[in-house]
Amino acid sequence: MADDLVRGTEICADNIGADSLLAKGSQQLAKRLMEMRRYSLALSARLTAEDQCVQAMDDASPTKWHLAHTTWFFETFVLAPMASGYRICDDSFHYCFNSYYEAEGPRHPRPHRGLLTRPSYEQVQAYRAYVDEALEAFAASARAGEADAQALLEMGLNHEQQHQELLLTDILALFAANPLRPAYEDNGAADAQGKLQAQNGIAHTGDAVSWSLFEGGVFRAGHASQRYQEERGFAFDNEGPQHDALVQPFRLANALVTNGQWLAFMADGGYGDARQWLADGWALVKLEGWNAPLYWEQRVGQGGSQWMQMSLYGLRPVDPRAPVCHINYYEADAFARWAGKRLPTEFEWEYATSHVGYRRHENESVRFAPAPLRHHGVLAQMFGHVWQWTASAYLPYPGFRPAKGAVGEYNGKFMVNQHVLRGSSCVTSAGHARATYRNFFYPHQRWQFTGLRLAEDVL
Amino acid sequence: MADDLVRGTEICADNIGADSLLAKGSQQLAKRLMEMRRYSLALSARLTAEDQCVQAMDDASPTKWHLAHTTWFFETFVLAPMASGYRICDDSFHYCFNSYYEAEGPRHPRPHRGLLTRPSYEQVQAYRAYVDEALEAFAASARAGEADAQALLEMGLNHEQQHQELLLTDILALFAANPLRPAYEDNGAADAQGKLQAQNGIAHTGDAVSWSLFEGGVFRAGHASQRYQEERGFAFDNEGPQHDALVQPFRLANALVTNGQWLAFMADGGYGDARQWLADGWALVKLEGWNAPLYWEQRVGQGGSQWMQMSLYGLRPVDPRAPVCHINYYEADAFARWAGKRLPTEFEWEYATSHVGYRRHENESVRFAPAPLRHHGVLAQMFGHVWQWTASAYLPYPGFRPAKGAVGEYNGKFMVNQHVLRGSSCVTSAGHARATYRNFFYPHQRWQFTGLRLAEDVL
Amino acid sequence: MADDLVRGTEICADNIGADSLLAKGSQQLAKRLMEMRRYSLALSARLTAEDQCVQAMDDASPTKWHLAHTTWFFETFVLAPMASGYRICDDSFHYCFNSYYEAEGPRHPRPHRGLLTRPSYEQVQAYRAYVDEALEAFAASARAGEADAQALLEMGLNHEQQHQELLLTDILALFAANPLRPAYEDNGAADAQGKLQAQNGIAHTGDAVSWSLFEGGVFRAGHASQRYQEERGFAFDNEGPQHDALVQPFRLANALVTNGQWLAFMADGGYGDARQWLADGWALVKLEGWNAPLYWEQRVGQGGSQWMQMSLYGLRPVDPRAPVCHINYYEADAFARWAGKRLPTEFEWEYATSHVGYRRHENESVRFAPAPLRHHGVLAQMFGHVWQWTASAYLPYPGFRPAKGAVGEYNGKFMVNQHVLRGSSCVTSAGHARATYRNFFYPHQRWQFTGLRLAEDVL
Amino acid sequence: MADDLVRGTEICADNIGADSLLAKGSQQLAKRLMEMRRYSLALSARLTAEDQCVQAMDDASPTKWHLAHTTWFFETFVLAPMASGYRICDDSFHYCFNSYYEAEGPRHPRPHRGLLTRPSYEQVQAYRAYVDEALEAFAASARAGEADAQALLEMGLNHEQQHQELLLTDILALFAANPLRPAYEDNGAADAQGKLQAQNGIAHTGDAVSWSLFEGGVFRAGHASQRYQEERGFAFDNEGPQHDALVQPFRLANALVTNGQWLAFMADGGYGDARQWLADGWALVKLEGWNAPLYWEQRVGQGGSQWMQMSLYGLRPVDPRAPVCHINYYEADAFARWAGKRLPTEFEWEYATSHVGYRRHENESVRFAPAPLRHHGVLAQMFGHVWQWTASAYLPYPGFRPAKGAVGEYNGKFMVNQHVLRGSSCVTSAGHARATYRNFFYPHQRWQFTGLRLAEDVL
Repeated sequence: MADDLVRGTEICADNIGADSLLAKGSQQLAKRLMEMRRYSLALSARLTAEDQCVQAMDDASPTKWHLAHTTWFFETFVLAPMASGYRICDDSFHYCFNSYYEAEGPRHPRPHRGLLTRPSYEQVQAYRAYVDEALEAFAASARAGEADAQALLEMGLNHEQQHQELLLTDILALFAANPLRPAYEDNGAADAQGKLQAQNGIAHTGDAVSWSLFEGGVFRAGHASQRYQEERGFAFDNEGPQHDALVQPFRLANALVTNGQWLAFMADGGYGDARQWLADGWALVKLEGWNAPLYWEQRVGQGGSQWMQMSLYGLRPVDPRAPVCHINYYEADAFARWAGKRLPTEFEWEYATSHVGYRRHENESVRFAPAPLRHHGVLAQMFGHVWQWTASAYLPYPGFRPAKGAVGEYNGKFMVNQHVLRGSSCVTSAGHARATYRNFFYPHQRWQFTGLRLAEDVL
Repeated sequence: MADDLVRGTEICADNIGADSLLAKGSQQLAKRLMEMRRYSLALSARLTAEDQCVQAMDDASPTKWHLAHTTWFFETFVLAPMASGYRICDDSFHYCFNSYYEAEGPRHPRPHRGLLTRPSYEQVQAYRAYVDEALEAFAASARAGEADAQALLEMGLNHEQQHQELLLTDILALFAANPLRPAYEDNGAADAQGKLQAQNGIAHTGDAVSWSLFEGGVFRAGHASQRYQEERGFAFDNEGPQHDALVQPFRLANALVTNGQWLAFMADGGYGDARQWLADGWALVKLEGWNAPLYWEQRVGQGGSQWMQMSLYGLRPVDPRAPVCHINYYEADAFARWAGKRLPTEFEWEYATSHVGYRRHENESVRFAPAPLRHHGVLAQMFGHVWQWTASAYLPYPGFRPAKGAVGEYNGKFMVNQHVLRGSSCVTSAGHARATYRNFFYPHQRWQFTGLRLAEDVL
Repeated sequence: MADDLVRGTEICADNIGADSLLAKGSQQLAKRLMEMRRYSLALSARLTAEDQCVQAMDDASPTKWHLAHTTWFFETFVLAPMASGYRICDDSFHYCFNSYYEAEGPRHPRPHRGLLTRPSYEQVQAYRAYVDEALEAFAASARAGEADAQALLEMGLNHEQQHQELLLTDILALFAANPLRPAYEDNGAADAQGKLQAQNGIAHTGDAVSWSLFEGGVFRAGHASQRYQEERGFAFDNEGPQHDALVQPFRLANALVTNGQWLAFMADGGYGDARQWLADGWALVKLEGWNAPLYWEQRVGQGGSQWMQMSLYGLRPVDPRAPVCHINYYEADAFARWAGKRLPTEFEWEYATSHVGYRRHENESVRFAPAPLRHHGVLAQMFGHVWQWTASAYLPYPGFRPAKGAVGEYNGKFMVNQHVLRGSSCVTSAGHARATYRNFFYPHQRWQFTGLRLAEDVL
Repeated sequence: MADDLVRGTEICADNIGADSLLAKGSQQLAKRLMEMRRYSLALSARLTAEDQCVQAMDDASPTKWHLAHTTWFFETFVLAPMASGYRICDDSFHYCFNSYYEAEGPRHPRPHRGLLTRPSYEQVQAYRAYVDEALEAFAASARAGEADAQALLEMGLNHEQQHQELLLTDILALFAANPLRPAYEDNGAADAQGKLQAQNGIAHTGDAVSWSLFEGGVFRAGHASQRYQEERGFAFDNEGPQHDALVQPFRLANALVTNGQWLAFMADGGYGDARQWLADGWALVKLEGWNAPLYWEQRVGQGGSQWMQMSLYGLRPVDPRAPVCHINYYEADAFARWAGKRLPTEFEWEYATSHVGYRRHENESVRFAPAPLRHHGVLAQMFGHVWQWTASAYLPYPGFRPAKGAVGEYNGKFMVNQHVLRGSSCVTSAGHARATYRNFFYPHQRWQFTGLRLAEDVL
């Protein structure tokens, strides 16, 4: 399984920014689908049935639920309507594993997903096998080659990739709530590295920030393919329609903000200074007592106190060179204000990425946590480390129309109260990232692999 | 395992009201302890690791946690201080499995017990085996024969019996929250019986209530043994000191209130009539929309609607002859007021039980749900069906002093805001019931096996 | 108006314990009624229309609402059904000023009483005048001499006296929430006295506690008159039926617990020691951060910090000799445990009061705050300073039956989750106190004039 | 006073869109200031002291508090730092009447503003008089002519105008929570008109919507004056910097959505159809049971049921021709989706307004409620009826920098989680509206005078 994961990483590196996976006929699509499906199982294989059953909080879902829901998605939106002769695996799963599709009827409440000890782990495994068999056959059939089927198969593939990332973020949330602080993956080397960093202390706050300058102007923003077209690759509906957007001249930092820089913000009283914060954020700082990123904890030992960070590798010393992670929009915005800078808009981020061409991200030996910068350069770390908060609210692009029916609920109904994040993270699945990709979360949410990159005006 | 449970039932029948189990030397104590410990495992054996990991709500705990906490109790209060050479199994368990003992230091928050996917099911099994080995050896040792050790061993035994009942109430809560409505035990016969009842409809509301009359006066209430004394049997500290109490003349119903009678209360608009309710109860009726006992649900079919009841046997038609169960104090009090009667005080209940002598309760074929009355008689169903809400607040008896140290937190610190329940339920462990036993829950709580028996004044 | 209040005090002193006011014919009843009604106006006269309109929290009501509700009570339960030709003043007031009588239909939500800027202050004054005119005429009529009318008139009188006390407790809550800390009454002398005490510091914790011993046994508890009978005086229904009660031998402290003693509890870490607290109380200590009685605040000045207390006289230094006030049941219970004592039961309190005969309480120059002990003696300060928490839950006496109809909701429906307080406070209206009187509040409530007196077992 | 208000209306009509009030020397500024200050008093003059003291909910503030806070604003930001020899009126007011300026230190909690019965109504009147005297003198002084002083005086003037509108929205919230449904202004004519409409029933849903087409492109958005410059008129900092913005071709409805159209949405099940709603909005629909705009209530009479609307004129039948009012963003968005249209962006709204030139809005006889359309035309009702929700999140314009110091908190720190509204309402003060004005509220808020105008794409 370790092999699978390393390969996973390599695939990721190869395809980042490749404007999605282009299918060469349905045989290849079937192969890609099954590989993707196996990767979900590989991610869950190191977890016990108990680990897979529980959710740490309302926002998170159990591993088992992710595995079943993504299966239900293929069954409901592809197999049931399109695969002739397909029989629903188990009627009761429809209620259990519908996430939020109102058009599909009533469903198990989200905060109670962790109560579903039945269907059991074994039943969910069997559900996946049952659907995979039908899915593989369907994907190789003539019907799957038609445009609507292809679009839905690609959507199902990309949907499950999103849940692969959520599966990891949610397991981290669960393990961070466990007093034993278990590791999702034991990684001796990484640990040793972590300990090394710890000796260096927090004085090391990374190199000075370097910037890239962009002239701005009107450019074509968004993805050209609103519904899936084979030659253009897949994109979610919220990435289109492609349209003209205008950006003013701006500079974008060449690297992500690091833990070391964040420690400087903390040392300067950043979490205690109302002037740095949006009012809604400041109210939460006081209410919830934030004083560091999520998953950071201060351990006091002989040599003084040290900031530790819970991660998929377990509890490790904070590495000052690594990108800061697990911060929310309010924190990102406050840091930027404290630094005298600001967050980029989503259009600035996309414009810059498109103009420079994305750097193929470094081949990381560490996959389950963001890694320190290895090589300086223009717009390094755009993908593969942390999602980057932007100043843009998550709203529809001009002319946006969601698809008819239940799948139209996929993105459109969430277009309020959230902010766009761009790039991808260390736990984003291979081939899932794009320059036009729009991730989105609420400003208060911290449990995703989220960080920031600074921007500034050109005066 | 089915054998074990049937034997468990028989033991229960034999010992109810036997004023606890008298130990004949430490060999026998060791034997009793190990039998009791095995019974916990037998109760959990039909559950998956997933089932054992989750809690349905803050008030409930996971099966696995019950198994570990009771083990921690023996380790912390018996083995660690008294068994020479005993080594703590795992230091991290102290934080995980301390329930509410402030004197034992910080502990995992109760609402997060269901997040403990680690320690795993297997680790908890190993923890039990490790402690059981030491416990069996200790119980057979000379040290265990000393009064303080005996008292704590008996306390540990009775403590775990309480958790055996909680384990079952908490699994029912979990399965009732599951859309599949799984059964803890499949029981074809019981199911058939249930279906039979359903055909009878709700017209059958049981026989007319018959009453026993008691003259009252001053009597010795409570248990004579405040700390464990072998010749008197075990009692919890809250059952003493024994003291004079005064009761007025009263009548007590010879049988429990049935589902059929409860259906009549519902049909008469009982849940919609403010006059029947205490003000705090009425506020909750409106806020939470109560319209039937917990776990009842109305299913609409061809022949009209039918009330079903979720139980450890799964979802079954409500049997109008069985005692009503899973009602809280407000409901019990409202029913009594509607019926023109009242709840007995805990002293009336104890006085009556002591004077009549408890009936050996019928040898039930059904263990996991309260059963209909088989034989009419004086004070039938005092034990073994449902805990009976009393009008008495849970307060200390005159002269009550909790023990020193952490075990003093066992009962005393809960003596406010709760009401006393008397008797025992169908899921109370064998040998655990007593005429002086004081169970207690908050007036709003419904998930225990709780019902009522009516009383009335003699004017 | 100051005159009125002083006379009020004198009446109070004369009648405490006089087993209620005996009416000598209806002329006298009319006179007593109108005096009582004027006293409500006198209490409110020093407040602005704004002060009278607002409620500090859900538990409290606006002064204006108290004035109108008590008027509505006479109109609804006396004048409308009994006074021939009486016409309702304004139909809309029924919805606005019904407190909690379900039988009287829907009503304005309690937490929104403070939103009722209309009916205006002037309209409420006019409402009182309108009803008073009818009430005075009715009270002098033949119909008023019949038993049912007399009972309801007495009930209305006693009901309004309860609201007179609530009016003062609720104004204190309002003024304590005001950053200007306004005084309900400016009292230079009292202030000077307070300052004097402050110089004495907190070292002075009062004299050693002296105790009275009681043998206990069976005695007649409660009031003989369940419905009003002229020769026996008025009592609320919850004070009866009179019945035999049994108390064990006990000692009762001759004086109330003082602020000085409370400061010693605080200095000993009482608010930080879980062992002293009931579990429900301890949870609130941590949640709400209690570290002193309600209305205490620490002011830091040149000579160090000083505890101040908000009162109806404004913010004053805590007087270590005065009875501690504004503590809840959890605090009272924790203090008693810390002191190695306990709270008395309500029956012990009543037994002791009946046996000793209540001391006529000292003629206080200070009426709006509890005063230091002037003269030592047996069971001093039983009345007229602070309500005394008892260990007894508020439950019905044996044979209790509430009256038919809406007035039956007066007391009975609250008999759960609360504790009984005995005695009376410095703001209890003249003639309202009795040895059998049962006041009741929830264990967490602190805004009433509540304190404690210790008891202990005789071993 | 009625005169004042009518004049107020006329001033409003004259100046709408006049790009703010141009001062002709400081004499005129002083005159404008004093007129504006008197208008606040005129608005409050018909309210009792009680009405002025209370807040209906956390979002609303008491009238008295508005009067005092706006005074404190001038005192703190103008007089104290700039008027030589000015003495603070009362130090305690700083804590009471600071709204949200963290840089000005701790302040009275917003949800407790309604508890401030002191300082009294009279004290606040005196506070205003004291500050007005100093303000008038200062405004006429040489110092006031300097740029920084002028900017702050204009800001204080515009700030108080905002509170004039809030005063009216908050009084409506208070009166709507009052069971007597009092009217802020009794208006017989309006009432009669309302009754007339009621007879017409809900069949009349207004004329067909007519549209204006706009070509779009890059235009200069925002106000040219970021800090106050006399020749350009006043604008808030959030209206700048002026910058290029790009809009696609679009159509904008020539009239506001009416109550009649809203009734059609309701009749079509709009509040019960998840497909029409953003997910966050749908969750609130179900949680809070929305089924009509805020302040609508259904009254059942002889002739069937009728929708009534609480307004500043009291409770009146819903007029199907009047613009719908008191809806939140979720409702506006759902209506637009139901209608097959969308909300305009704030830039579309501003672009259209700038190109067409705003229509001088009709001289309404009704000021305290939005009025039906009188004359059809291009972009009617852009100002003076209801604020119009836009699809734009409230975010900083490119290059936005808040001012240094406390006044920098005025707008900037709220730029998250809210949506922009454009135009002005029937209760917006005269001269306060502008084409570049950006009002903002949270998507769930309904108590403002908020409605919508539809837009659609040009395909």
